[in-house]
Amino acid sequence: MAPASKGNGHNQSSQDDLLPDLPKGPLCMYRAKSSFNWKELLLFLEGEDMLIFKKRIFSAFENDPLFAHHPGEELPIQKYRELNFLRCKRLFEYDFLNMQEMVKNPLKISMLINCLGMYDWSLSAKYFLNTYVFASTIQNSGSQRHMHFIQKTLNMEIFGCFALTEVSHGSNTKAIRTTAQYDPTTQEFIINSPDFEASKFWIGNMGKNATHAVVYAQLYTQGGQCHGLHSFVVQIRDPKTLLPMPGVMVGDIGRKLGQNGLDNGFTMFHNVRIPRENLLNRTGDVTPEGVYSTSFKDVRQRFGASLGTLSTGRVSIIGMSVVNLKLALSIAIRFSATRHQFGPNDDEEIPVLEYQMQAELGREIHILASAGKPLASWTAQQGAQECREACGGHGYLAMNRLGDIRNDNDPNCTYEGDNNVLLQQTSNYLLNCITDRHQDKVRIESPLESVNFLEDFKDILGQKFVISRVEDCMDSSVSLAAYKWLVCYLLRESYQKLNQERKSGSDDFEARNNCQAYYCHSLALVFIEHTVLQRYHKYTHHASMPTSLQPVLKRLGALYGLWSLSRHMAVLYQGGYFSGEQAGKMIKNAILDLCAKLKDDAVALVDVIAPPDFILNSPIGKANGELYKNLWATVLQGSKVLERPSWWREFSTYKPTIGSLKSKL
Amino acid sequence: MAPASKGNGHNQSSQDDLLPDLPKGPLCMYRAKSSFNWKELLLFLEGEDMLIFKKRIFSAFENDPLFAHHPGEELPIQKYRELNFLRCKRLFEYDFLNMQEMVKNPLKISMLINCLGMYDWSLSAKYFLNTYVFASTIQNSGSQRHMHFIQKTLNMEIFGCFALTEVSHGSNTKAIRTTAQYDPTTQEFIINSPDFEASKFWIGNMGKNATHAVVYAQLYTQGGQCHGLHSFVVQIRDPKTLLPMPGVMVGDIGRKLGQNGLDNGFTMFHNVRIPRENLLNRTGDVTPEGVYSTSFKDVRQRFGASLGTLSTGRVSIIGMSVVNLKLALSIAIRFSATRHQFGPNDDEEIPVLEYQMQAELGREIHILASAGKPLASWTAQQGAQECREACGGHGYLAMNRLGDIRNDNDPNCTYEGDNNVLLQQTSNYLLNCITDRHQDKVRIESPLESVNFLEDFKDILGQKFVISRVEDCMDSSVSLAAYKWLVCYLLRESYQKLNQERKSGSDDFEARNNCQAYYCHSLALVFIEHTVLQRYHKYTHHASMPTSLQPVLKRLGALYGLWSLSRHMAVLYQGGYFSGEQAGKMIKNAILDLCAKLKDDAVALVDVIAPPDFILNSPIGKANGELYKNLWATVLQGSKVLERPSWWREFSTYKPTIGSLKSKL
Repeated sequence: MAPASKGNGHNQSSQDDLLPDLPKGPLCMYRAKSSFNWKELLLFLEGEDMLIFKKRIFSAFENDPLFAHHPGEELPIQKYRELNFLRCKRLFEYDFLNMQEMVKNPLKISMLINCLGMYDWSLSAKYFLNTYVFASTIQNSGSQRHMHFIQKTLNMEIFGCFALTEVSHGSNTKAIRTTAQYDPTTQEFIINSPDFEASKFWIGNMGKNATHAVVYAQLYTQGGQCHGLHSFVVQIRDPKTLLPMPGVMVGDIGRKLGQNGLDNGFTMFHNVRIPRENLLNRTGDVTPEGVYSTSFKDVRQRFGASLGTLSTGRVSIIGMSVVNLKLALSIAIRFSATRHQFGPNDDEEIPVLEYQMQAELGREIHILASAGKPLASWTAQQGAQECREACGGHGYLAMNRLGDIRNDNDPNCTYEGDNNVLLQQTSNYLLNCITDRHQDKVRIESPLESVNFLEDFKDILGQKFVISRVEDCMDSSVSLAAYKWLVCYLLRESYQKLNQERKSGSDDFEARNNCQAYYCHSLALVFIEHTVLQRYHKYTHHASMPTSLQPVLKRLGALYGLWSLSRHMAVLYQGGYFSGEQAGKMIKNAILDLCAKLKDDAVALVDVIAPPDFILNSPIGKANGELYKNLWATVLQGSKVLERPSWWREFSTYKPTIGSLKSKL
Repeated sequence: MAPASKGNGHNQSSQDDLLPDLPKGPLCMYRAKSSFNWKELLLFLEGEDMLIFKKRIFSAFENDPLFAHHPGEELPIQKYRELNFLRCKRLFEYDFLNMQEMVKNPLKISMLINCLGMYDWSLSAKYFLNTYVFASTIQNSGSQRHMHFIQKTLNMEIFGCFALTEVSHGSNTKAIRTTAQYDPTTQEFIINSPDFEASKFWIGNMGKNATHAVVYAQLYTQGGQCHGLHSFVVQIRDPKTLLPMPGVMVGDIGRKLGQNGLDNGFTMFHNVRIPRENLLNRTGDVTPEGVYSTSFKDVRQRFGASLGTLSTGRVSIIGMSVVNLKLALSIAIRFSATRHQFGPNDDEEIPVLEYQMQAELGREIHILASAGKPLASWTAQQGAQECREACGGHGYLAMNRLGDIRNDNDPNCTYEGDNNVLLQQTSNYLLNCITDRHQDKVRIESPLESVNFLEDFKDILGQKFVISRVEDCMDSSVSLAAYKWLVCYLLRESYQKLNQERKSGSDDFEARNNCQAYYCHSLALVFIEHTVLQRYHKYTHHASMPTSLQPVLKRLGALYGLWSLSRHMAVLYQGGYFSGEQAGKMIKNAILDLCAKLKDDAVALVDVIAPPDFILNSPIGKANGELYKNLWATVLQGSKVLERPSWWREFSTYKPTIGSLKSKL
């Protein structure tokens, strides 16, 4: 990953316009201690173009009354969904990123997702499930005859959703039971849900709003021949009235732990007829007469091709998790700095993997996304919880937003593929690398080079930890070397365990299943941690990195590396990479040293990652650091804060007769 | 801990009345595989008397319309608080546990807290903060002249709260800034909050309801002499109207992440006058003329005596955390058993420490509670999150209750003393044991014997892990031995680190602060894990344990021990207790073996810990295991599930003009 911005040649006054000074207050004493200039770092990391884009979005929201926060008001769920829809509609009017700009700079798509998410993940999800997921699935899986759906989506004539998951099947997409039977007499498909367990469920935008769905169903032609899973555009509501179409039972699945502005829904189809042309026919089509044709040899291959888009979702989730951790840290570190002494231990940051959808990279991107999503979502989940606890009681107050951040981040752990299931994809790939090398003597290499080091498998396994002074642990190269050994060791262990299981008579499914805990699961996590660390190391040691920013960014990398590594220390000892008491002690002491060194930079680092106060929307996390004033003001802005309860007579007048119901027990 | 019930001599028909068969369904196949009888285990663990008590509470709730669940309805926060108050009032009429019964069997208090909590923690908190915390603080800190407050509380003439915490001070109770100035001319105390940072904050029941508060304030007599923190009964609202008393500004702090049925509040006192007699005078009093007297020599000693009651809160939280983990596991295991294959790894259960408030035990109870609370609340928090993820998307649906369980459990991590702060109390105690032994050659022993093994400190440190076969790891004695070594090793390490810090010139506060991460923090956790395991080991190896129940309970103990131990494996290697590759591998293989052995018992174990369906209140966790039917039914019971949104015209009629606001950006 090349740094986003190369020079320091920004015009000073335009820089101040883009990044105005933060308000003075109790945090200034910490800012004065920081080892770097937060504006320089932010410009360097994101680049002027992105910062302008971000500022445009944030300023629009801050100035638009429709986006005002109402801290004291309680929003009933249906009202929240209405407001979320109205805000979503307003996004069409702002049109922050049109199709041409998207194509020119695809990174802006994730920036827009994340900016909307920093404001409210429900808004981000609603907007992107329609204009991005729904429309791009039609774009990627359909053909010219479907383009009118995309045009109508972008004009908001129709509103879309992506309907894959069913009540009884989530991650296992091959077991989808909705059917699409072709009827040549009318040239229609008949969409049907065999029972309620096969109803589409959890579909975002479907609960109250969507008029059209991309529905995944098993395609049948006459004579009962099944051609496997295909996608269809199905109209589920009348855009003029939002009432359901005939044969469609559609509803809202109800309240969730978070993201309640989004209307997740379910549908059961009762022989719903759709035109033949609504089959998205990129990978297979049916002639008017009912003959199925595909350019793929076998069903699995075709299926694999059609689901390639799922990597997109996972990569987005990595970005969302990073945003959530940034928000939580911004709140918790500003709180801690103004509340009392603090020692940060969550400053790790996972660079968003660059995403380029090129066919030959598909497989590697899939295995990186499949492990990156679990790492990012779990790190954010645990980090958000630690931030909430670090803020003590005040962290438990809803207005301070750490609960919403955690609860909105939570689905990242299970949707777009359950984390544990996804990790198997990555470990399977790594195991195959080794098997192929054994059997066919092929070189181990991949387009993004994430597995190339496995070529030195045997050499690496022979290495030992030889560092003897804490001072020598201050660069990420130390943990990088240890991680390379870890990946190789766990790869060998997993490989042996798998063979053992097979020899003892387990079938392939059972054998792989018995190898997950402690073996393949750890392998996949260690591999992705290595990849993240490797890329960050390269980034911070790149020639274009300004010398003023190098120390703090290198320290962060060293801390992240050692902190991550410390959770694998038992394996390092077990396999003999570590030996003796000093190795473990040194790692811990190096972590403590780095924390001490980074403490004075923590507030300034948060100034880099925090969005404006209006977007961060947390009294205890405001940039001015006036912790108690901000908190107190927001408490008093609440509704009926000082009023007696409406039910006061239930206490004052109608007293209970003690024990009067005891006889009924 | 002695088993609760000794014989198997229960009358069969009365047993069936007490524990009716669970409904038939998909879970039966798992139940048939279990190695023990769930009714026998439940009777053995809790005893008939407790089960009858529990059933009485649960049946009352299930039959009382006021306690009906309304799954589809949304409850605005003020309505939820009203309902919670009405239910609380109804508890006075049921009078499940009167004063005499409480005194006779104090364990019933925690059973009542937990039964109410299984239904709704907001109800449990509201009821007990009034009838137990408020009343018992007056009982313990006051004298005869305060008894009328208790009588009125039990009759619900008044409603109480416990007001210690202030906006800017939580755990650090010595820094409380509210003042109570004695005025001999009127024989009154003048209660005052110097500023909003000193307002009482987070006080349960204070938001809307409480008429009286036990207020902690610095007591001043004439001439400006401060006698330290004391507690006072202050009337904050008129019981006839629930309007605030003159000089009292009282309000609601707003929505929290959970427990929103409880009205947490704040108060600022503006020279509020209360009678001299309202000082709770157990540890110090003021004569009518204004002379202060106390039987304690110094302020710290008196203060320590007055805060002994805080252990009660912490022990309660341990029980609450256990309940939460039981609820979450009941839901997740029943879901997993009917959803697909599963391998449990959270079957550990932390026995509730028996609680006897006897003065000479105070110190040991304090250090056990101070470490037990963090262990229990964190285990429940992580366990609830794992349960939610194990249930995938459906775990994220609010109706399935895993979110409420997690969110209601969350404050257990920070209130009644932040977990990290509390752990310091325990590690300080352990460090003092070693220091005293060094300096004065006193024996290390304690009333509950939790530290007695430290007497063999040196011998234990010389031990090594010598087991060489997985089969020999199947008893909790293996991890028990390893834990003894761990405590001693971390104690020595912490002791050395502390001396090192002191030698390098740190003052006591700084030195202790720098010894927390990796040293004292781990020491306290390892110590409490050892204590829990030791007690469980003794319990399961007790002669009165029926042979039919021994295998499953011993396996659970072995699994909990090894699973807990596995998180400390790096330290075991580092310190040389473990050496070689086999030690680490064997522990992991033993854990996998035990999981496999316990898999068939998981559903039956959940039948033991799950409350009735009405109380568990989770469609995916019902005893009949009809996962999808239950889920589907509850979805359709929701409000306006199938209706179009009220704002449908905002989509259908009033379309956005794409990009119309772009010029405004």
